[in-house]
Amino acid sequence: MTDAVRAALRAQRIELPSWAFGNSGTRFKVFAQRGVPRTPYEKVEDAAQVHRYTGVAPTVALHIPWDKVDDYTDLAAFAGECGVGLGTINANVFQDDDYMLGSVTSPDPVVRRKAVDHLLECVEIAAGVGVRDVKLWFSDGTNYPGQDSIRARQDRLAEALRETYEALGEGQRLLLEYKLFEPAFYTTDVPDWGTAYAHCLRLGPKAQVVIDTGHHAPGTNIEFIVAFLLREGKLGAFDFNSRFYADDDLMVGAADPFQLFRIMHEIVVADALAPEAGIAFMLDQCHNIEPKIPAQIRSVMNVQEATAKALLVDHRALTEAQQAGDVLGANAVFMDAYNTDVRPLLAQVRQEMGLDPDPVAAYARSGYADKIVADRVGGQQAGWGA
Amino acid sequence: MTDAVRAALRAQRIELPSWAFGNSGTRFKVFAQRGVPRTPYEKVEDAAQVHRYTGVAPTVALHIPWDKVDDYTDLAAFAGECGVGLGTINANVFQDDDYMLGSVTSPDPVVRRKAVDHLLECVEIAAGVGVRDVKLWFSDGTNYPGQDSIRARQDRLAEALRETYEALGEGQRLLLEYKLFEPAFYTTDVPDWGTAYAHCLRLGPKAQVVIDTGHHAPGTNIEFIVAFLLREGKLGAFDFNSRFYADDDLMVGAADPFQLFRIMHEIVVADALAPEAGIAFMLDQCHNIEPKIPAQIRSVMNVQEATAKALLVDHRALTEAQQAGDVLGANAVFMDAYNTDVRPLLAQVRQEMGLDPDPVAAYARSGYADKIVADRVGGQQAGWGA
Amino acid sequence: MTDAVRAALRAQRIELPSWAFGNSGTRFKVFAQRGVPRTPYEKVEDAAQVHRYTGVAPTVALHIPWDKVDDYTDLAAFAGECGVGLGTINANVFQDDDYMLGSVTSPDPVVRRKAVDHLLECVEIAAGVGVRDVKLWFSDGTNYPGQDSIRARQDRLAEALRETYEALGEGQRLLLEYKLFEPAFYTTDVPDWGTAYAHCLRLGPKAQVVIDTGHHAPGTNIEFIVAFLLREGKLGAFDFNSRFYADDDLMVGAADPFQLFRIMHEIVVADALAPEAGIAFMLDQCHNIEPKIPAQIRSVMNVQEATAKALLVDHRALTEAQQAGDVLGANAVFMDAYNTDVRPLLAQVRQEMGLDPDPVAAYARSGYADKIVADRVGGQQAGWGA
Amino acid sequence: MTDAVRAALRAQRIELPSWAFGNSGTRFKVFAQRGVPRTPYEKVEDAAQVHRYTGVAPTVALHIPWDKVDDYTDLAAFAGECGVGLGTINANVFQDDDYMLGSVTSPDPVVRRKAVDHLLECVEIAAGVGVRDVKLWFSDGTNYPGQDSIRARQDRLAEALRETYEALGEGQRLLLEYKLFEPAFYTTDVPDWGTAYAHCLRLGPKAQVVIDTGHHAPGTNIEFIVAFLLREGKLGAFDFNSRFYADDDLMVGAADPFQLFRIMHEIVVADALAPEAGIAFMLDQCHNIEPKIPAQIRSVMNVQEATAKALLVDHRALTEAQQAGDVLGANAVFMDAYNTDVRPLLAQVRQEMGLDPDPVAAYARSGYADKIVADRVGGQQAGWGA
Repeated sequence: MTDAVRAALRAQRIELPSWAFGNSGTRFKVFAQRGVPRTPYEKVEDAAQVHRYTGVAPTVALHIPWDKVDDYTDLAAFAGECGVGLGTINANVFQDDDYMLGSVTSPDPVVRRKAVDHLLECVEIAAGVGVRDVKLWFSDGTNYPGQDSIRARQDRLAEALRETYEALGEGQRLLLEYKLFEPAFYTTDVPDWGTAYAHCLRLGPKAQVVIDTGHHAPGTNIEFIVAFLLREGKLGAFDFNSRFYADDDLMVGAADPFQLFRIMHEIVVADALAPEAGIAFMLDQCHNIEPKIPAQIRSVMNVQEATAKALLVDHRALTEAQQAGDVLGANAVFMDAYNTDVRPLLAQVRQEMGLDPDPVAAYARSGYADKIVADRVGGQQAGWGA
Repeated sequence: MTDAVRAALRAQRIELPSWAFGNSGTRFKVFAQRGVPRTPYEKVEDAAQVHRYTGVAPTVALHIPWDKVDDYTDLAAFAGECGVGLGTINANVFQDDDYMLGSVTSPDPVVRRKAVDHLLECVEIAAGVGVRDVKLWFSDGTNYPGQDSIRARQDRLAEALRETYEALGEGQRLLLEYKLFEPAFYTTDVPDWGTAYAHCLRLGPKAQVVIDTGHHAPGTNIEFIVAFLLREGKLGAFDFNSRFYADDDLMVGAADPFQLFRIMHEIVVADALAPEAGIAFMLDQCHNIEPKIPAQIRSVMNVQEATAKALLVDHRALTEAQQAGDVLGANAVFMDAYNTDVRPLLAQVRQEMGLDPDPVAAYARSGYADKIVADRVGGQQAGWGA
Repeated sequence: MTDAVRAALRAQRIELPSWAFGNSGTRFKVFAQRGVPRTPYEKVEDAAQVHRYTGVAPTVALHIPWDKVDDYTDLAAFAGECGVGLGTINANVFQDDDYMLGSVTSPDPVVRRKAVDHLLECVEIAAGVGVRDVKLWFSDGTNYPGQDSIRARQDRLAEALRETYEALGEGQRLLLEYKLFEPAFYTTDVPDWGTAYAHCLRLGPKAQVVIDTGHHAPGTNIEFIVAFLLREGKLGAFDFNSRFYADDDLMVGAADPFQLFRIMHEIVVADALAPEAGIAFMLDQCHNIEPKIPAQIRSVMNVQEATAKALLVDHRALTEAQQAGDVLGANAVFMDAYNTDVRPLLAQVRQEMGLDPDPVAAYARSGYADKIVADRVGGQQAGWGA
Repeated sequence: MTDAVRAALRAQRIELPSWAFGNSGTRFKVFAQRGVPRTPYEKVEDAAQVHRYTGVAPTVALHIPWDKVDDYTDLAAFAGECGVGLGTINANVFQDDDYMLGSVTSPDPVVRRKAVDHLLECVEIAAGVGVRDVKLWFSDGTNYPGQDSIRARQDRLAEALRETYEALGEGQRLLLEYKLFEPAFYTTDVPDWGTAYAHCLRLGPKAQVVIDTGHHAPGTNIEFIVAFLLREGKLGAFDFNSRFYADDDLMVGAADPFQLFRIMHEIVVADALAPEAGIAFMLDQCHNIEPKIPAQIRSVMNVQEATAKALLVDHRALTEAQQAGDVLGANAVFMDAYNTDVRPLLAQVRQEMGLDPDPVAAYARSGYADKIVADRVGGQQAGWGA
């Protein structure tokens, strides 16, 4: 069994978000860090460091227009030189003054047209560099009761999604992300998995739901949603992060490592871990106060540890206990895997991959952190938010 | 406009739950009240009082086996004599020791068979008395991670629903209710509207979703769900109640009257208020510490007041402000209706219907409360729960 | 009774936040509005408009350093010319890069010193212009378990509060605000009323708790906290706003007008409405998508309406029903007041005060909105956040 | 270091609740289990089994009147023969019809007198058998706005607590538990730690706060409360259990083992683990669907595992990283301890104590479960709730 587990861990793939390497913060303050990238190229360089020490993070998701460049083919080539590739293209229709009352669901048809055009541009960028997935998150919603028609906004949303869907090329996918609230504070137009699912179902097989682990109401059982969407064939991707309160965007596994294990268990039992299963496992985090590259390394490791534990669950014993109605027995089998210290196993996997068993230490020793602080002087640090 | 509003209010129909007239409580204690019904017949009598003074509550939902009788036709005839009719048949697969680990999703096929047989019995009872709706709520779920397979339970659920659906007669409907948690504390097999919707969609047009207003995670925007399901043609019914915390089952409108208004606004804008629209508006409440008949009267009045306010929204002005992007203006139009004191309007409506303008006072004067205390001595008071 | 109610409404005082007139937003985007003030002087001018049309908002709270000026006496004089006065001085120790890991609770003593010096400066500014209240909110906390010692941070906090407290002049007060989360995502150093209360108790009678209505966990009963702190003599002030989710900072009364009524009821029963009771009623809101001056006017009116309803509660009838254990009766008395349309009463109050009965319309007619758009060209619009 | 850790683990003490061995459930259903105790004596026998296999659970808390016996000295002697002792006396003023509108806070003085008399009886029972702690939890509260005066209820509460406090003997303590909601659904009279703390502070040094880990609003940081109360010298005890939603009363550590670790970390850093520190660590759980004795064994083991991990935190390295502002480094030190598999260490500790290294297996082999099923036929099974 261990051979299969190690093989699965070696084959695992986690996508990094370019924006995690730029500055981020809350509405109260974005704390600038030294050495932060100024360009998409520098973000890709940083992401490549994460892959270099973990070996399982070979792609970098882009956010348009944050990562807008003149020539995406050139950026892709540069990424290749760094040892990574470009990943999911993320549309952004929330940072232009025109979008104050919504983008694709705005009451203003001119704004809607502009937003849809951006979505189409993202499909085109993805196609141009051979990327499969275009990910859509809409901040659209309202702040006050009565502000706009909930239903009319759904009509506008459906129309925009349809036009985007129809622009998808062969082998491309539209990934639709939902979020409970923020920045909209009364209604959000895609607030939950049910809404995303219903739209994706109408669109067709190329439309899939994205689960961002931070985008749920308190008490929501996320692994249930994972299991449900996998059963329906409608789970397309994860945005991994963790949270204690709202959309905190902390490192995945930092707030509730047991929850991450339960999520990965649903992935494993549905045989959806391998890249060919078509689930994109992406990080989507903000390192507001911690250094970004090591935080991404740590996040990748957290996902690996949860995955390793999920792979160690004794499924035969679990199923036997479940079918016997042995509540404590089934729970004990499940917890046995969770309580295992998988760090030695992962150290071994890394060594089999020709990597340092301790990615954090290896990165620290590399001197890269000092180098970027020294080199990246002047210019405009990458960031997002207000 | 007022004529149409008054006509709509006169035509409104709210269904009463038989179980609201029996004792109820929490896991800590069921406080017995004097005069509580001992039989389904006495529950129907009490429900008829509510209709007598409000004029808009002509049907009584039954809960099987709580309301099990030898002859439902006789019960229906008795109801008719009391001035009301029988309403939705509610299945109950959560109060038998066999259901400890689930009913239709139990790992034990014998238990599942028993549960499905009960559902089929409910369909039959409904058909026998000409009732359209059979409502299903499943307490099924698990308490501990690993206890059972989330996915296998969905398979079992789908199978049970399919068999029940196929037993529906012409003109009958299956109403599927969801609930976040309680009594299951880790997973619930139908935890949210998305799950209920997905199952109903697969079942077909006779399957519709029930929204119980108390069954959501904190922060859930219920009127969004109302609007969404109406747009999809998949909203079948409401279980009305209110809550500050979890499934408190307080009187509808007692905890957040503004929310109830927003819900009724979505009903009104979708033209779904009239009985022919096919939405069943039911109360589902527990009067743990307050007298039950006046609490039901008050609840009906609360729904009427929210409805009246929703009917008073100036839709033309609202739409204009919405389309102009006038956030404060649209909100002001909306709030104008909410801030209106509609009690005089409803008093007028009642007088037009030949009723006392003040149902609470009229009931209090009737002496019925004293009569049942005097008459209902001995026997076993109706109740539910442990 | 109505005379007393009208008198109480005429005497009511609500403080406006200077920052509500500047731009604000979320971490995703700050939408700039036209005509927004560029200086503290222009903010004061805008605030004076709100008072001009409502008559109950005669003071403007300042936020240092957002409202830093060379000469506060000059600013105070200018405010006086505009018809208003300066109010509470709000410290700000969260927008400097030094505060990334905390201000008064930072592990770095140099940072702590800097933060405390700022607090002392605020006390001095307040004293200089004769302002009673200095309000402290600390964004301090941690994002990751283990990041810092919860207990050591409390020690540092206590020390900083002590030094600030001791700098208070005769008649000055330290107002301590709590907040559940954001911007800190794991621990917050003053997360709840209990923490603020315990610190204020140790500090002494000049330290009082501030309740920001948006700073609570889901399900928190805010009026309970109001009643409790009033009973303890430790309620100093409100930051009014409303929310559906987290700290949404919407207009007070917009999300849950019934809650605002319940809060004002506790104020009224404790006889704490009048200015001499020492409770400062302040707005603290962000008008991210709506025009700011009318939003403030509307917010003041919302507080007035909730107050008017609270003043209309029939306390004798309420107490009788409460003491008789008449649950429905007591609730009915309470709801009677809430369901009353108090807008005519407030229109009358305004006319008695020599004001237009409709402040929103009067402001709209004034042309002020157009004037500031035309005049305030160039310069740097005021704002806050990242 | 390991020696000290093992010594601390051997010295750890966890109190068992008698009621965990009886039947329990939700308001929907109490599922009866075979072999459940019929008397307090049988509950003590079952609890003694848990201690027999874990070695760290030598006392049994009683709940009056559930565990009412004629002669508590006899029960204590019986417990001694079983190898355990009697622990905390828990008052119960929520299961009598008189308490429908409250016990010590009821508007009815006769009811209040009855409730206080029960509290005094509990103090007397505790004194009679030499028990230090009397634990008070009040289900008191209201369901509807306006139902009763929040403030008057605080006055009544304070009065009842004062009378009970004054009855405490030398060396006795009053432990005051708080709870957010349930069974009261609008206000609860002791809803949060701040309320319990404020009352305990006024009462004096013998009054201490109890933290029940399931009694908080979503998002509440429990370890913060632990740290805060320890710093104030006002933490008296824990009621351990776990939950995903509300007061689920699942096995401690089952829902969020990382949270339990964080709580135990605060205990360890405050040097409050040893019995002489005066913190009572009690279980308070409901085993609705799982067998009760093994569930208690498992719960004790979960607390031991969290404690062991907390004891393994490298405090020197942690403090260094914290003081250096090394966010990721400090978190890594913390997580290193959490990620350790401490089961071998605990097996060793048990062997040092002369116990089987696997308590669950040892109990299963003992045949006790079959024995009680065979023996306990007839009679009335112990239970609680409605």
